[in-house]
Amino acid sequence: MAGILGAAVVAYFVRYLLRQDQGSEKVREVSEAIKEGGLAFIHREYRSLLIVVVLIAVILGVLGFVTPALGWKAAVAFIFGALCSMGAGYAGMNMALRTNGRTCAAAQEGLNQGLRVSFRGGAVMGMAVVSIGLLGLATLYFVWHKDPNFLSIIPAYGTGASLVALFARVGGGIYTKGADAGSDLVGKVEAGIPEDDPRNAAVIADFVGDNVGDVCGMGTDLLESYVETVIATMTLCGVAMAVGIVSDIKTAWHVPMLIMAGGIVASTVGCFLVRVGETVEMSALLGALRRGTLSASILTAICAFVVIYFLSNNLGPFWAVLGGLIAGVLMGESTNYFTSYAYRPTLEISEASTAGGGATIIRGFANGMMSTWPPIVFIAIAIIVAFHFASFYGVALAAVGMLSTLGVTLATDAYGPVADNSGGITTMVGLPPQVRERTDALDSLGNTTAATGKGFAIGAAAINSLGLILAYAVATGIVTPEMITTGAFPSGLSLLSGPVVVGAILGAVMPPVFCAMTMKSVGVITERIIDEVRRQWREIKGLMEGTARPEYGRCVDICTAEALKQMMAPSIMTIIIPVLVGVILGKYALAGFLIGALITGFVLAITLNNAGGSWDNAKKWIEAGHFGGKGSDAHKAGVAGDTAGDPMKDTAGPSLNIMLKLMSVISLLLAPVLVHFSGLI
Amino acid sequence: MAGILGAAVVAYFVRYLLRQDQGSEKVREVSEAIKEGGLAFIHREYRSLLIVVVLIAVILGVLGFVTPALGWKAAVAFIFGALCSMGAGYAGMNMALRTNGRTCAAAQEGLNQGLRVSFRGGAVMGMAVVSIGLLGLATLYFVWHKDPNFLSIIPAYGTGASLVALFARVGGGIYTKGADAGSDLVGKVEAGIPEDDPRNAAVIADFVGDNVGDVCGMGTDLLESYVETVIATMTLCGVAMAVGIVSDIKTAWHVPMLIMAGGIVASTVGCFLVRVGETVEMSALLGALRRGTLSASILTAICAFVVIYFLSNNLGPFWAVLGGLIAGVLMGESTNYFTSYAYRPTLEISEASTAGGGATIIRGFANGMMSTWPPIVFIAIAIIVAFHFASFYGVALAAVGMLSTLGVTLATDAYGPVADNSGGITTMVGLPPQVRERTDALDSLGNTTAATGKGFAIGAAAINSLGLILAYAVATGIVTPEMITTGAFPSGLSLLSGPVVVGAILGAVMPPVFCAMTMKSVGVITERIIDEVRRQWREIKGLMEGTARPEYGRCVDICTAEALKQMMAPSIMTIIIPVLVGVILGKYALAGFLIGALITGFVLAITLNNAGGSWDNAKKWIEAGHFGGKGSDAHKAGVAGDTAGDPMKDTAGPSLNIMLKLMSVISLLLAPVLVHFSGLI
Repeated sequence: MAGILGAAVVAYFVRYLLRQDQGSEKVREVSEAIKEGGLAFIHREYRSLLIVVVLIAVILGVLGFVTPALGWKAAVAFIFGALCSMGAGYAGMNMALRTNGRTCAAAQEGLNQGLRVSFRGGAVMGMAVVSIGLLGLATLYFVWHKDPNFLSIIPAYGTGASLVALFARVGGGIYTKGADAGSDLVGKVEAGIPEDDPRNAAVIADFVGDNVGDVCGMGTDLLESYVETVIATMTLCGVAMAVGIVSDIKTAWHVPMLIMAGGIVASTVGCFLVRVGETVEMSALLGALRRGTLSASILTAICAFVVIYFLSNNLGPFWAVLGGLIAGVLMGESTNYFTSYAYRPTLEISEASTAGGGATIIRGFANGMMSTWPPIVFIAIAIIVAFHFASFYGVALAAVGMLSTLGVTLATDAYGPVADNSGGITTMVGLPPQVRERTDALDSLGNTTAATGKGFAIGAAAINSLGLILAYAVATGIVTPEMITTGAFPSGLSLLSGPVVVGAILGAVMPPVFCAMTMKSVGVITERIIDEVRRQWREIKGLMEGTARPEYGRCVDICTAEALKQMMAPSIMTIIIPVLVGVILGKYALAGFLIGALITGFVLAITLNNAGGSWDNAKKWIEAGHFGGKGSDAHKAGVAGDTAGDPMKDTAGPSLNIMLKLMSVISLLLAPVLVHFSGLI
Repeated sequence: MAGILGAAVVAYFVRYLLRQDQGSEKVREVSEAIKEGGLAFIHREYRSLLIVVVLIAVILGVLGFVTPALGWKAAVAFIFGALCSMGAGYAGMNMALRTNGRTCAAAQEGLNQGLRVSFRGGAVMGMAVVSIGLLGLATLYFVWHKDPNFLSIIPAYGTGASLVALFARVGGGIYTKGADAGSDLVGKVEAGIPEDDPRNAAVIADFVGDNVGDVCGMGTDLLESYVETVIATMTLCGVAMAVGIVSDIKTAWHVPMLIMAGGIVASTVGCFLVRVGETVEMSALLGALRRGTLSASILTAICAFVVIYFLSNNLGPFWAVLGGLIAGVLMGESTNYFTSYAYRPTLEISEASTAGGGATIIRGFANGMMSTWPPIVFIAIAIIVAFHFASFYGVALAAVGMLSTLGVTLATDAYGPVADNSGGITTMVGLPPQVRERTDALDSLGNTTAATGKGFAIGAAAINSLGLILAYAVATGIVTPEMITTGAFPSGLSLLSGPVVVGAILGAVMPPVFCAMTMKSVGVITERIIDEVRRQWREIKGLMEGTARPEYGRCVDICTAEALKQMMAPSIMTIIIPVLVGVILGKYALAGFLIGALITGFVLAITLNNAGGSWDNAKKWIEAGHFGGKGSDAHKAGVAGDTAGDPMKDTAGPSLNIMLKLMSVISLLLAPVLVHFSGLI
């Protein structure tokens, strides 16, 4: 029901946006080029995806001969999940691509109009994700919930969504930073021309990157978190009954879906509350977005209370949901503190830049590492509360709480790249300064929300992944509801058994290796882009004088082809290694493996994200005229920090989210197979 | 017995070294200044240490009223452990300080003589550590092994050693890199004078840093690993009996001590095998050291076989020891592969330097992360083998195997700073070029062994820490020998119980926060040193012209005072937080906490160590004339990488070793207290 409401809201926003002025011809032209590039990437990505999707679906179908829990229904659910995610990613990105030019036009009218248009561009992504996600789940539920293997079928839906997210996040992440670094290095640093200068052949690829990475990648990432959270909670229904929270299995299934539905309604209200006056003031803009997310959170909490009050035997689950909701908000704020130049940590990095590149790196990296503790403490408290009140089921519900307001939080997040793009277009086509001032204000607001949003996405991935691991433990029979009531666990699950420890340390090494691979990939694309832009400057006459146009399309093509190629190795590793660990070392070792990966992955993701964010803003602070301003040695050091941080925060860090979730959900999906044997050695 | 042999070897080496020529007057003068600085630091450090030692001893004594397992005997053992570690650190460093000048003199005679003198300078540290460590343990054993609380007393000895190691490693690490970076930034970068130029007031502080960080810090670090490994194995005697490896408790205690004794004999032989011809060839020098360590390993393996064949009921423990021994060697080699410019990873970083500082950082950091997998896989295999053949006791024995040849591996390691110092002195006093060539060869050999040694130290710390955690689990009664035989573990220890998961993620955040603190501290000292050197240049007339001498002592004082100050916060955090977790969240959460810290700590230590090492050597490769050589843009980028990497590899990374071990051994020490209650919430 709420899914349909969400879809209606999406339709309304789309209609609203398409009726907006597309701007001058030049704006339209640039916007069109970005759109073409973005769609070209997504089409090629989806083509490669389809092969993998079909392959895995066939494997799932064949596994039906091994265990009746899998088979053709799982294969169908898997494909359905993949299609839902592809659809949401496509819809959100398509709309973002159509909004950037319109934002330029709207910003000519005024700041409020600019904010409204760009925010609604992002809101399409946000609302599309939640409504498609929930509608998909509801469909599966109504069709197959009477099937005895229902609990083995729904993880396949999540795995489908997860696979698409992996491709979108990793491929998009490599694309966006490869194009960005290439464009900056060859343009700003080498040729000394401004950012977003039309003579630079890589600028369009850079704009496209913002969309494929930060809109499509982020959207599918959170769609995955969203649906898998519900799936994990449903799988833990047995635990909910064992600890006496609900009396029957259907109630345990309904609770998460109803809370999510309430969240969609609340997000809709939140989206409409985002508006601002005409003074360009950062605090007013930020206040407008905060009003939206905060009211959505409060409404969701009320809704969760009502749902649990009527359905559950006690209020325990409500505290779990509330804990998750609050932890999510606090995690976002903590990211903001550690990465915004309104606070000390980032200012210290700017200051360290006066002592050179090395000092900048050390200070920023130290800041990234230091920033891990608040989110971890928030999550730890949320887990303690949830576990205390509702055991495993509570932990999964905390994730539901965190993600329930996704519609609006994702909207604030996807808004960022739209604003960024429109700012870039403004420069590129040379619109009047007061327009640039407005789009700049919107852009810098976007940077703040992007940081908050990333912190939120990491937290959501971590707690979601934990929920999936718990679901895996129950699904493989490692933990039975009886064990939870009696407290007699098998020795295999002991924290200190050999396989668990070995699994944990092997799992721990996955995130850094994965990050190393993606970060290297960015370097590869960067080099290719630099070569291409140099070639065009050399070969196209009149390009530097502004009389000829560069071949933007070539750079877009290079990024697309190379990003998809580079994405394969880390993606395949993520899919295959948990399967190998499960088969070779057994299901207990796999549990340890997932926990080990979750622990280092969580810490590493926060470190990379916040180190990268603070380098970025430390550089911006210098550029705003501090410590010597643009062109000073401090600025050069700041640029080195920013360059180093970009692939950390926009490629490696966010990709870790998916990696953790995908490994967990694949393990959950394979649980019916793993339950039969406990490893080859 | 072997301890006494070791002590005899130490005495022989000391006598040998003191009889060597001290070199020209100028060499003596510089060497004297370094010695003074080093001793001044260690005296002040030991004074601060004494306060903490007395304080903790009093607490341990008072805890005797809570549980009879602690009390005055534990307090005495604790003080004894601290004194042993202080003694070993003092002896080793003192000798290293006296050897650097003598190495210069010896290098004038020839390469072999230079190697022999410098290596024996390092060997004093190596042999002193193992003989003092084992003698101390043996003393405790003979005096108190009939005490029913013997197993609660010996962890106090380890904790004493650990505390000293923490101060030495963290304080020394902050000192050495603060002085190094300060001296380089103000000298090489700012004033454009060569490294080790006598006009730079910070050079002596830099030389002192090498000794306090890499000799004293490394030595006390490994002394701690060494004794705690034996302690963990002894504590797990009950497990050894439960799984039928040995028939009585004394045998379970004798096995690790006898293997260590065999290792000392083998190390002695190894030390005497280190010699080389007169051609300056890297491979010959490396071969000489390899011959020493390899023969010691083989001898130790034979010795372990004999011990186990006669004392144990089956050969299971031998495979555990062998697994540890081999894993230790392989981990060192893997570090070498990822950090030496003889191999691709480091060369790629040099190449990336041509694209600027940002690219250098990304590539080096990616390399550091990638390098985590081989050591983890080696350790995982060693654990699987050890656990399979001898359960928990086997894991502890694997650590014994890894550390048994410490006498000679630490010698190759402590040799590095001696060679480095002598090279520096050669430049400073302007000895003839062929001497410089020889000391350079010795120095660059020292860099390789330092990398290998650090990899080894990390591995040793990790597996040692795991052994301590297992010992903790047994000592708190979380795991009883009966559980190991029957397989019925309590739910509290389940990998997926709330407290364990919360403990694990809280533990996971300790290493990055700790690293962040130490890395920031380095920055603080660097800034103060830069200010001081600038002040001297400004205020002392004739300094830059070479007619006046800078006040080296002031820089040494600043480093000493500041390093000790900066060391306090991370040290106190390391001591207090595990206690708080144990008391507030309970003993199960503390087990999770330790494992969580171990997992991220291990991964982070390898990443930081190898990223730092590869940046360092990538810069050296450029300086050797590749990619533009010294002064090129690539070189500048390489320097930025090196500057960023230095505190990672020499301060934060190595300090993590101690942090992990100290938290584990404190938990083990407090086990008798924690056994009574399972947390406040």
